[in-house]
Amino acid sequence: MESVVFFENFKREDVLSNLLSAFQKEMQSVDQIIRNKIVSDVTNVPDISNHIFISGGKRLRPLLTLASARLTEYAGKSHITLAASVELMHTATLLHDDVVDESDMRRGRQTARMGWGNAASVLVGDYLLGQAFRLMVSTGSIPALKVLSDAAAIIAEGEVLQLSIMNNLDTTEDAYMRVVDSKTAALFSAATEVGALIGDQDHSVAAALASYGRNLGIAFQLVDDVLDYGHSSDIGKNAGDDFREGKITLPIILAYRRGDESEREFWRRTIEARDQKEDDFEKACNLLTKYKTLEDTRDRAAHYGSIAKDALVTFRETETRQQMLDVINFCISRAY
Amino acid sequence: MESVVFFENFKREDVLSNLLSAFQKEMQSVDQIIRNKIVSDVTNVPDISNHIFISGGKRLRPLLTLASARLTEYAGKSHITLAASVELMHTATLLHDDVVDESDMRRGRQTARMGWGNAASVLVGDYLLGQAFRLMVSTGSIPALKVLSDAAAIIAEGEVLQLSIMNNLDTTEDAYMRVVDSKTAALFSAATEVGALIGDQDHSVAAALASYGRNLGIAFQLVDDVLDYGHSSDIGKNAGDDFREGKITLPIILAYRRGDESEREFWRRTIEARDQKEDDFEKACNLLTKYKTLEDTRDRAAHYGSIAKDALVTFRETETRQQMLDVINFCISRAY
Repeated sequence: MESVVFFENFKREDVLSNLLSAFQKEMQSVDQIIRNKIVSDVTNVPDISNHIFISGGKRLRPLLTLASARLTEYAGKSHITLAASVELMHTATLLHDDVVDESDMRRGRQTARMGWGNAASVLVGDYLLGQAFRLMVSTGSIPALKVLSDAAAIIAEGEVLQLSIMNNLDTTEDAYMRVVDSKTAALFSAATEVGALIGDQDHSVAAALASYGRNLGIAFQLVDDVLDYGHSSDIGKNAGDDFREGKITLPIILAYRRGDESEREFWRRTIEARDQKEDDFEKACNLLTKYKTLEDTRDRAAHYGSIAKDALVTFRETETRQQMLDVINFCISRAY
Repeated sequence: MESVVFFENFKREDVLSNLLSAFQKEMQSVDQIIRNKIVSDVTNVPDISNHIFISGGKRLRPLLTLASARLTEYAGKSHITLAASVELMHTATLLHDDVVDESDMRRGRQTARMGWGNAASVLVGDYLLGQAFRLMVSTGSIPALKVLSDAAAIIAEGEVLQLSIMNNLDTTEDAYMRVVDSKTAALFSAATEVGALIGDQDHSVAAALASYGRNLGIAFQLVDDVLDYGHSSDIGKNAGDDFREGKITLPIILAYRRGDESEREFWRRTIEARDQKEDDFEKACNLLTKYKTLEDTRDRAAHYGSIAKDALVTFRETETRQQMLDVINFCISRAY
C-alpha cells in the first residue's frame, strides 16, 4: 500500500520545524508584509494586531500557500503576498471568534477582547480583513481573488451555522461536518488553491491542491476538537473550553449517541443547559474515553488525511511534495 | 455666483424620490442582486440580512454609484454589481456598529443584535462583507477592487479611531473630522469613484467623482450628528442615542469648548462619566442651541457640500449632474 511508503519514517515533532526551515526565507517575507500591514497611527490597531500575531500560532495556512506555489514551480513573488493575505484573514476570524465564543484565552495568552474589549476586537478584525483584501487585490489575480472572497463568505456562513447548532445535542455528524468544512476547511482549501492559481496552473492542478487543502483542514479541525479534551495545556487555549462553552464537536456528538440514558442526561445538563459542576469536565473526558470517541475522531481525521494524500499523488516526487505529505501526518498526530 | 444657480429652486422633500425614480430600474436590479446574495440555507443568515435590508435606509450609496456611472456614460452592466456591493459593505458595517455601540434601535426598528444577539450580528456582518467582496471580484475590475478594498480597511480604522475618542471631551475638531473622513466619507468616495472606474474613465474624472463623494459623505455625517439632537423620531434611530452613548460628535465638541466651567462640568459628567439624569438630554439640547453648535455644524456641512459641488463643475450640464447636485442639498438640508 502506497500509504505505508508515504507515512513511514515519520517523526512528528520535526515536521513543522522542518517545514518552517524549508520555507524560512519566504516566511520572513510573509511576516514582514504582515508587520507592514498592521501599522496604523490609530491607537489599539497595532496593539491588538501585535498582541494576536506575537502570540504566534503555527502559521500553517500561509506555509501551505508557499508550499503549493513551490510544488507547482511558481517563479514569481505574488505567492508571498497571498500567503500574508491568508494569514491576515485567519487572524481576523480569530478576533471575531473570541468575541463570539466569549473566550478568555488564546494561544496561552489572554484574548484581545479581555485586554481591549469586544468592540475593539470586532473592529480590528474588520480592519485586518480589509488589509487582507487590499493585499490580495494588489496581486491583480482575479482567479485568486475569486477563491479567497468565496472563502471569506463561506467561513462566515460556517460560523453562523456553528452558532445555530451551539448547545444542540441533536446535531448530526453530517451537520457538524458541514460546519468544519466551511469554518475551517474552506480557508485551508483556498490557501493551497491560490498557491497554484497565482502561477496560472491548469484547473486540474488547482483542483488537486484545493482538495489537498480542504481535506487537510478537516483533519486539522477534528484533531483540534480532540485536543480540547486533552489534559495538556500545550495547545495554548484552555483545555476544556469547548466543554465549558457547550460547543458541539464530534467527540461529543458520538458520545451522546453511544451513551445510555443517564449519560445522555449528563450531556443534556452540561452541554445543553450548561449547568456544570466542578468535576464534570473530568466526567466528560471519562465518557469520551469509555466510548472511544477521541480515538474515533482521530480515525475520522486520518480518513480525511488519506484523501489529502491521494490528492498529491499525481504530482512529481519532490522534496516539497514529501513535506506536504508530512504536514498531513503532523495534522493527524499532533498533540498541540 | 454659480452656487446660486445650482442651489435655487431646490425642493428638499422631492430630491430623493426624484433620484430614486430616475434610477428606479437600475435600483431594482441592485436590490435583486442583494436579495440573491443574502440567500443561505443557514438559519439566521437570511433572517438577519432581511431584517436589516427590509428596514430600508436611503440606499444613497448605491444610488451614487449608479449616478456616477451614468454621468460618465458607462454603457455596461457592472455598475449595478458594484452598487450592490457598496450597499452590502455598508450594511455589514451597520451590523457591526450596532454591536460596538450597543444600540437598541436602527431605522425605527429593533437592531439585529436585540433579536438575534451580538454573536450572530458580528458573523452575519462578516458574511455580508464576504458577499460584497465576491460581487466586486465578479466584475473583474482591479481598479474598482483596489478602491473598495482600500475603503474597507479605512472604514474599520476609522471605527477604531472613533472608539478611542469615545467619551473623550478633549477630542479636537480635527481629530473628529478624521473619524468622519474614514468611517463615513471613505465609502461615499469609493461608491462614486468606482462608478467612474468601471467605465475606464481617466484618472482626473475618477478623482473628481471621488472628491464629490468624499465631501458629500462628510456633509452627510455632520448632518447625521445634528439630527441625533433633534426632537423628531423621523430618523428612525432614537434621537439622543449619541448623547446616551457619550459619543463625541461635532455639536458636542463645539459646545464643550464654547461653554463656561459649570457647563463643561455638565458635559464631563454626562459624556465622560456617562452619569445621566432624566432631563439631561433636554439640558444638552439647550446648551447646543445656546451656543448655536447645531447651526454651525450644518454650516460646516454646507462648506463640504460646496466642495462637492465644485467637484462636479467640469462635467457637462446634464440631468444626471443636476440630480447629483440636488443630492448635496438633500444631504445638507435633510431632516431624516
